[in-house]
Amino acid sequence: MNTADLGLPVAVPSTALFTDQYELTMLQAALRSGTADRHSVFEVFTRRLPEGRRYGVVGGTGRVLDAVENFRFDETILGFLRERGILDEPTLDWLAGFRFRGDIWGYPEGEVYFPGSPVMRVEGTFAEAVLLETVILSILNHDSAVAAAASRMSVAAGGRPLVEMGARRTHELAAVAAARAAYVGGFHTTSDLAAGFRYNIPTVGTSAHAFTLLHDTERDAFTAQVDTLGSGTTLLVDTFDVAEAVRTAVEVAGPGLGAVRIDSGDLLLIAHRVRQQLDELGATKTKIVVTSDLDEYAIASLAAAPVDAYGVGTQLVTGSGHPTCSMVYKLVARADSDTPGTPLRPVAKRSMGAKTSLGGRKWAARRLDADGIADAEVIGTGPVPAELADRQLLVPLVSGGTVVAREPLDAARDRHIAARDQLPLSASQLSRGEAVLPTEYL
Amino acid sequence: MNTADLGLPVAVPSTALFTDQYELTMLQAALRSGTADRHSVFEVFTRRLPEGRRYGVVGGTGRVLDAVENFRFDETILGFLRERGILDEPTLDWLAGFRFRGDIWGYPEGEVYFPGSPVMRVEGTFAEAVLLETVILSILNHDSAVAAAASRMSVAAGGRPLVEMGARRTHELAAVAAARAAYVGGFHTTSDLAAGFRYNIPTVGTSAHAFTLLHDTERDAFTAQVDTLGSGTTLLVDTFDVAEAVRTAVEVAGPGLGAVRIDSGDLLLIAHRVRQQLDELGATKTKIVVTSDLDEYAIASLAAAPVDAYGVGTQLVTGSGHPTCSMVYKLVARADSDTPGTPLRPVAKRSMGAKTSLGGRKWAARRLDADGIADAEVIGTGPVPAELADRQLLVPLVSGGTVVAREPLDAARDRHIAARDQLPLSASQLSRGEAVLPTEYL
Repeated sequence: MNTADLGLPVAVPSTALFTDQYELTMLQAALRSGTADRHSVFEVFTRRLPEGRRYGVVGGTGRVLDAVENFRFDETILGFLRERGILDEPTLDWLAGFRFRGDIWGYPEGEVYFPGSPVMRVEGTFAEAVLLETVILSILNHDSAVAAAASRMSVAAGGRPLVEMGARRTHELAAVAAARAAYVGGFHTTSDLAAGFRYNIPTVGTSAHAFTLLHDTERDAFTAQVDTLGSGTTLLVDTFDVAEAVRTAVEVAGPGLGAVRIDSGDLLLIAHRVRQQLDELGATKTKIVVTSDLDEYAIASLAAAPVDAYGVGTQLVTGSGHPTCSMVYKLVARADSDTPGTPLRPVAKRSMGAKTSLGGRKWAARRLDADGIADAEVIGTGPVPAELADRQLLVPLVSGGTVVAREPLDAARDRHIAARDQLPLSASQLSRGEAVLPTEYL
Repeated sequence: MNTADLGLPVAVPSTALFTDQYELTMLQAALRSGTADRHSVFEVFTRRLPEGRRYGVVGGTGRVLDAVENFRFDETILGFLRERGILDEPTLDWLAGFRFRGDIWGYPEGEVYFPGSPVMRVEGTFAEAVLLETVILSILNHDSAVAAAASRMSVAAGGRPLVEMGARRTHELAAVAAARAAYVGGFHTTSDLAAGFRYNIPTVGTSAHAFTLLHDTERDAFTAQVDTLGSGTTLLVDTFDVAEAVRTAVEVAGPGLGAVRIDSGDLLLIAHRVRQQLDELGATKTKIVVTSDLDEYAIASLAAAPVDAYGVGTQLVTGSGHPTCSMVYKLVARADSDTPGTPLRPVAKRSMGAKTSLGGRKWAARRLDADGIADAEVIGTGPVPAELADRQLLVPLVSGGTVVAREPLDAARDRHIAARDQLPLSASQLSRGEAVLPTEYL
């Protein structure tokens, strides 16, 4: 299968392998028992937000569309499943012709969500819908975790530019998805070339401590960098003595030096000192970039400091304490037979424990108050009340197997900012608390 | 570039894009200043273990070798870098012919490590060695985090089988690497088909709650499953009422039923009840698998329960609270000129803050006491003391650009168990504490 047209940093021969074995053994058993073609509705939702978080952010929807489009079983994969004795021949035959022909609805990417929000709904035969569980959850759980952390950092930064630089702290391909999710959540640029290549996110980067240490003197290093990258570059000033480095930097680059970067120490204190020194040296336009183990709290604590941009790594790509969401993919309704038109029956697990859920195909709408501020996430299984009809959150993503909702990444980014702006003010609090909107079931 | 021979679940056209932009701008500046060919030594190490952890586990070494071998700049990548204006033409020309021709030494995969352990050393020209920073750190930081969590869970499980089932909780390709790292750390099987395909890890999986809910009755579902997967299958018994499900399961499959799986509720209590019920029904050989939000503590708490296997998801693939290691890649020595044979000068950042490190090319050895138990991680830059000569930890991985240390994954897994067994007994404590070995510098 040629997927080069997706422009991935790695060509994905098929996403069908990103699947837990039990999806396939369930398929085999359902084919055998004659239930495989029962019309089924699966929904993706979380039972709760990560502890203390005020809202979630849907990330990865666009990647889900790529994954669904590429979910095919080629000869190599079928051969593997056969050789391992995982599936019988009728099931392998069925998979050979598989493509998803059902419908997917979902919260559009960048939208916020709350406990119970049906962020995605997959509808089709049981056979085709069950197969997508693992890859859809992988993508949404990872990307939404990063998008939520990015959103909090973006709130904390109050409009100052944010650079994603966490590639080295996470799996090399998770890093590409993380850069994408960070952009959706409000980041501006990334250090990750693969993310620039694949998703057209602006990339940045100039030098590390190793570059200074490579040269005989710091001055040699700065001169080499300015010679080739120009005086608009960012010089890293904390390899030896910061004050001396700043003086050298301005001597070498002139007062038009683009920026200095501080990557260690007491950033608040150092930023103030460096700003004063730069101003005294006439480098009043030279910016200060800080990049040392930042999270949303550290960013917020620098709000009053003369800092012009933040670079964030570890805490961003690991979701700032919550590296995954707890999204699940649950069968919520299915037909009693495979005869077309058979009414759907709501279903749900109902044993002891916290893992129960609400059966039935759901709609969701965000209710606004008189000032246009969101005041509830309303979820229901019956008819949508007229006053909520134009506030519905689920949109068609895939119709009859065809992707219908491709969009530029900037659309998701803009949507996130708009959705966040419509939340109550408490959404911008970093402190731990409850979800800013209650979930109401109709 | 054809990398199909690597058998990746996705063909990687090149790993060169998994790189932070500053590696390339440093290259350009070094080429301009005439320092690019200075012989350089970079080392990968952590300054500390995650809080409370007793030891680290090296994971991902084998994947690093794949990444280094595939680190090439093809026309597509060069075109991207040119079009974005990231690099000048001399640098693009240099990259067009690039392949790493230096040497890499490292702790072999599965080995344990401690604060300061030089887990990998990359040596060559500055130009070739600096380029590998990002991708090497991505792989080691991610895979080692999962391997360490897996190791703790494996200790807690005390020999009972562990199933990796976290694919849905992490990025779809991080999941494949996580399954691999979990295997190195002591897991036995995975639910992830891509991990089975790529790394030949045994895969398992039978059914989810959706399969039961698809059918008109639980009995129908169990019958369908047993009909096609045989009575040796694992039936999921907690969709409705566990006791009723266990009764039905044994009726349908007979006393030869392979296993039942419990995925919710008070696992300790339920496992005891289910065991008693199974025994009363004559299904004395039927195993009990538990799979609900387990981590190493939950596994340990079930040590006295009649549980035969654990399935672990979220907490495994997110490193059980520590989803990344804090490995860094630091220039520790370099020549003053590019004349061959120029002696190496130790270098290190030395500004304020916690980010200082020790210059010089290091060796490392694990000292044993009279009983053959490890008592120190000894690291030095001078000659290796004779009594430690045969306890050295770094082995050649790449020589003159050629990979020299490919090995089956089982070798890394066996090595991990052997290395762990040689640690003081406190290594098996799950409680928070200090590293079980002190790091001594000679």
